[in-house]
Amino acid sequence: MNRVCALFQIKYPIIQGGMVWNSGWRLASAVSNAGGLGLIGAGSMYPDVLRTHIARCQEATDQPFGVNVPLLYPNIEEIMDIILEMNVKIVFTSAGNPRLYTGRLKEKGITVVHVVSSVAFAQKAEQAGVDAIVAEGFEAGGHNGREETTTLTLIPMVNRSISCPLIAAGGIATGSGMLAAMVLGADGVQLGSRFVASLESSAHQLFKEKVVSAKEGDTVLTLKELAPVRLMKNKFYQDLEALYQQNPSKEELQQLLGRARAKRGMFEGDLIDGELEIGQISGLIDNIRPAAEIVADLVKEYNMALEELPGVI
Amino acid sequence: MNRVCALFQIKYPIIQGGMVWNSGWRLASAVSNAGGLGLIGAGSMYPDVLRTHIARCQEATDQPFGVNVPLLYPNIEEIMDIILEMNVKIVFTSAGNPRLYTGRLKEKGITVVHVVSSVAFAQKAEQAGVDAIVAEGFEAGGHNGREETTTLTLIPMVNRSISCPLIAAGGIATGSGMLAAMVLGADGVQLGSRFVASLESSAHQLFKEKVVSAKEGDTVLTLKELAPVRLMKNKFYQDLEALYQQNPSKEELQQLLGRARAKRGMFEGDLIDGELEIGQISGLIDNIRPAAEIVADLVKEYNMALEELPGVI
Repeated sequence: MNRVCALFQIKYPIIQGGMVWNSGWRLASAVSNAGGLGLIGAGSMYPDVLRTHIARCQEATDQPFGVNVPLLYPNIEEIMDIILEMNVKIVFTSAGNPRLYTGRLKEKGITVVHVVSSVAFAQKAEQAGVDAIVAEGFEAGGHNGREETTTLTLIPMVNRSISCPLIAAGGIATGSGMLAAMVLGADGVQLGSRFVASLESSAHQLFKEKVVSAKEGDTVLTLKELAPVRLMKNKFYQDLEALYQQNPSKEELQQLLGRARAKRGMFEGDLIDGELEIGQISGLIDNIRPAAEIVADLVKEYNMALEELPGVI
Repeated sequence: MNRVCALFQIKYPIIQGGMVWNSGWRLASAVSNAGGLGLIGAGSMYPDVLRTHIARCQEATDQPFGVNVPLLYPNIEEIMDIILEMNVKIVFTSAGNPRLYTGRLKEKGITVVHVVSSVAFAQKAEQAGVDAIVAEGFEAGGHNGREETTTLTLIPMVNRSISCPLIAAGGIATGSGMLAAMVLGADGVQLGSRFVASLESSAHQLFKEKVVSAKEGDTVLTLKELAPVRLMKNKFYQDLEALYQQNPSKEELQQLLGRARAKRGMFEGDLIDGELEIGQISGLIDNIRPAAEIVADLVKEYNMALEELPGVI
């Protein structure tokens, strides 16, 4: 049996990334009901909001689902308490030290997965005792690693450095992308951008349409002095570029970024001055679909790609 | 029959990238004799040197081989004259406008391939009448595109935008990497870094050993203000970084880069002050091998990866 399916007790090794402003209970439960693993993105939720989303998700599906928790968030202790209290079974941690919470969560029987962007952090996460690792490449949307290692090169290098199940993320939106990642040594895949453009995503409709219209070259990794983030080249990005011409300090960059700019872009639909986090593979995404159809298509395309393989050479 | 094999009349759809300072007649003929397509890298050769390499390659193999020509090089007219005069059958062009020479070369019966790093340039190259396109991702060593699109995302997007044969480059050094690229829609692959670390490469032994010892995260894309180039993070790169702290002009960057720095690093083995161009996949390369064994291993690994595929889901 596939190691990712066995670990999470799911039908397909397809995980929906727990993204800020995009991944509430509607999306997570829809993906889980379709046989994948849905994740609630706690990173953009106040504790009470997260509580509501977990409760709704538990009502909406009897299948496994999880919560993604960026470890650097300010109210992290409260978030972890809610997760334990509400009996969440699967936690994906990111953006922080996996040693901080892995032990505590695993003691309570929770399956813990950590997201990394380099071989060194993959090894540290495995040493911290996680059950699986998501290795995410440079092409991924949103927050990203400093090494800029791409999924195609990262997956085989992480694969030979760890022994726990490996989930590939960054640049995957189709069944053939999924098969390619698994050929490289991944046990499963995590998709973000593809699920932003789903009916159940909590992204603003205008942002979803922007993702669908995106072309190759429309995203960029920027704000490397703060925390590298991949986003669309809209007016906010042009403002950033103009500031960069003046050799800005971190404080000046932080000031331009301000607060709530990601919410403004992705959740409120301000395509001009908002921050629109999305991956390079948005250039390949052409429609907004129900999450269940996205999962079904991934499976169909994956099986078709297996059938249409070139022969031995 | 595989479209790349048919186009070049070769046994395996494996192309050795025509790299500056690494790809002379020894490497090109060894790869061609092993059933792949070897390329002489004209970019680092004076016209007379290129003439010698073509002649030696013609003596060393009766199999097809080609020459890679960066179109922006100063003595380009002389290079093209030599190619026509010496009856070279295959030309890969890069770094310039494919309309300039494609027609003239094809009139003489030469197979012309152009290297691109974006969908827009792939479409322009096809319109210019090339026989095949190499699409090269952000992870590739040496000169690189401004869009920073990775191979995993670039290949499917280029694949649906053109109809001529498509060769994937950037981040490939193994048979499973090759299969992954072909799952994504490529007809064949071009490998650079893997062939730098070959016995027949004209790279300095110290540079080859440096490639073998490279780890994930050891390369970086820099000099974006001049022409983006991926290289190893050695002292020369640290000097660049120090200069970047001072918000340098293009002229200051050009002055630090100077002339012949790539030759100094890759050909003369100055690992400290030389420019060491190499791809991210160097982190996966662990040995210096004869080119024929590299080709044979790629084929063996590719066929093994086909056999070990996960089943339908």
